[in-house]
Amino acid sequence: MNARTTENDAMTRALELALRGPRHGVNPQVGCVLLSPEGEVLAEGWHRGAGTAHAEVAALSALADPEFARGATAVVTLEPCNHLGRTGPCSVALIEAGVARVVYAVADPGERSHGGAERMREAGIDVEQGLGAPAVEEAIRPWLTSVRLHRPFVTVKWASSLDGRAAAADGTSQWITGPAARADVHLRRADADAIVVGTGTVLADDPALTARTAGTAEQAAAGPAGAARTDSVDGLLPHQPAPVVIGNRAVPATARVHAHPVPARVFATHDLAAVLDELYADEVRSVFVEGGPTLASAFVAAGLVDEVLVYLAPTLIGGPRTALTDLGVGTIGEQLRLTVTDVTRLGDDIRIVARPGASAPTKE
Amino acid sequence: MNARTTENDAMTRALELALRGPRHGVNPQVGCVLLSPEGEVLAEGWHRGAGTAHAEVAALSALADPEFARGATAVVTLEPCNHLGRTGPCSVALIEAGVARVVYAVADPGERSHGGAERMREAGIDVEQGLGAPAVEEAIRPWLTSVRLHRPFVTVKWASSLDGRAAAADGTSQWITGPAARADVHLRRADADAIVVGTGTVLADDPALTARTAGTAEQAAAGPAGAARTDSVDGLLPHQPAPVVIGNRAVPATARVHAHPVPARVFATHDLAAVLDELYADEVRSVFVEGGPTLASAFVAAGLVDEVLVYLAPTLIGGPRTALTDLGVGTIGEQLRLTVTDVTRLGDDIRIVARPGASAPTKE
Repeated sequence: MNARTTENDAMTRALELALRGPRHGVNPQVGCVLLSPEGEVLAEGWHRGAGTAHAEVAALSALADPEFARGATAVVTLEPCNHLGRTGPCSVALIEAGVARVVYAVADPGERSHGGAERMREAGIDVEQGLGAPAVEEAIRPWLTSVRLHRPFVTVKWASSLDGRAAAADGTSQWITGPAARADVHLRRADADAIVVGTGTVLADDPALTARTAGTAEQAAAGPAGAARTDSVDGLLPHQPAPVVIGNRAVPATARVHAHPVPARVFATHDLAAVLDELYADEVRSVFVEGGPTLASAFVAAGLVDEVLVYLAPTLIGGPRTALTDLGVGTIGEQLRLTVTDVTRLGDDIRIVARPGASAPTKE
Repeated sequence: MNARTTENDAMTRALELALRGPRHGVNPQVGCVLLSPEGEVLAEGWHRGAGTAHAEVAALSALADPEFARGATAVVTLEPCNHLGRTGPCSVALIEAGVARVVYAVADPGERSHGGAERMREAGIDVEQGLGAPAVEEAIRPWLTSVRLHRPFVTVKWASSLDGRAAAADGTSQWITGPAARADVHLRRADADAIVVGTGTVLADDPALTARTAGTAEQAAAGPAGAARTDSVDGLLPHQPAPVVIGNRAVPATARVHAHPVPARVFATHDLAAVLDELYADEVRSVFVEGGPTLASAFVAAGLVDEVLVYLAPTLIGGPRTALTDLGVGTIGEQLRLTVTDVTRLGDDIRIVARPGASAPTKE
């Protein structure tokens, strides 16, 4: 096996390791594989979340003997950082360990953390960028987008009937989608730093806004408010997104969102960009917008959406309660083109993931 | 290979043959394989459309020597007919040819055509029903449904944005879906006996209602009315569904639907069941309802839908022009449950095929 193939395989492995880390939080998912000059795997590491070792340091720490790092190659999904965070800069750790070569996929876009490659080159390390970059870019797209745009990555999620309704005429909506789709929503909530709803949704549905395991999610949602508040403590997934409520209507003190394990933040405004600014300043890197239709449409109309997540149920409802309301599209040339990245059947339902922007230029 | 396996394989082949015939028209798609007592294929046949030989007769005609039929087994997708249509009854043809055994998948539900099995049994033939029945039922579901319900099989089709809109606020809708989806629509139009629109759609869009090949379909739709009328003569698919217009508004004499190769029928009524009755009496076995939203919703609300065909484009439009309007669903318990039978990506779009009825009992 030649050196290139070995490094390719190591990058694939490094990405697998990276994805073991949490998707939420201020730090990206990063994986690192240390190779001997002969191409054998010496050690592996990945980042387990803020406050723990970065992937490179984790890998160095996993060496049977620190001396094995001399002359080794570090294959890492993201450019080793250059800043002094809660851990020292990874670039310095690699230099001091005596690593001879560093191969990374994606440059660190962070204002305070970038520059690691340059520092390592100055120290005489052979540094190469770009191996496996497309797969890594895709895997950590939320974090990269957030750091590049200086605002949280925004996922707008809705569940609707095949004809785009989020509720029946009288406002009832339990249930349109089935258990598999609802369980998937809870897992995705747990990947986000914050979960965002409008005051209208709080007043109408009184949601718990917790990320729960499948069975307890059903109970918490179906039970009466008192019982639900108890249930929502059980069956919580390990990470809970911070609840955020946006809008000018008052949130009752008895709202279930106030029983959330993370204190709820209420923004009495319609300025979504300002809300995202403030959340970003508070280290929120991803938000999961759950509705209602007015808030979801406002995010879409403002161009503040990075991912659209739609759960389509095989049912027809008709009537006035559309999952999106008005988007300011007056004529067909103004429609907001997306690119579908995934279509998956979940139980009886269909999950569609899309992102803004047409997939390719067309002549039309 | 034992006799059962041989007959199974022959039924699979008979269904393949059946599907070579046209899907439209008053007769079903039927295939037939003649096997020797040793299990060898003697001849094959399928029905090529009204006025041509039925599958069994086609297979008998394809024998190298008519005497080979003596003692043979006929494997056929549908019960051999018993009526005297434009061709003689197939049951009699098989009896007279000296066939010893007949295996068919699905019983003929036709009032005038059923009874073939009984007649053959009385003549001493060993007759068996049910082999391969589920696949055959599914393949000729439109025809079976039509004969059983005494009305045409109804497909309601719409194209919409991911948020369920069929047009922008100003009514423009060209184009929401892409070329692959639009070409698919034309192929499916050509499978139907009739294509149905409301008068509102005729007045708003002036559609040609022809089934065209991909390139010419684009031209015909995009060009000015005069040019389009010329274009729509070129590139027509071999079978054209009969244009049907429903509604109380007047259809202008200059409407493009009047340039359709099949004379248009206009029903100035809102009684959809009565329209379907009349079409069925005129040997229409399948209709393709293309809109607009008011007519599609009326078919759905009336429970007169056998198949829903949705082309979802990766785009968001919002606003008032939903693909379905009101369905009389007041509360969520009344939503109209469907079962999705197919999800296929066509270019950038997603085609979803569904039918009425929940897929399985749920506890919810």
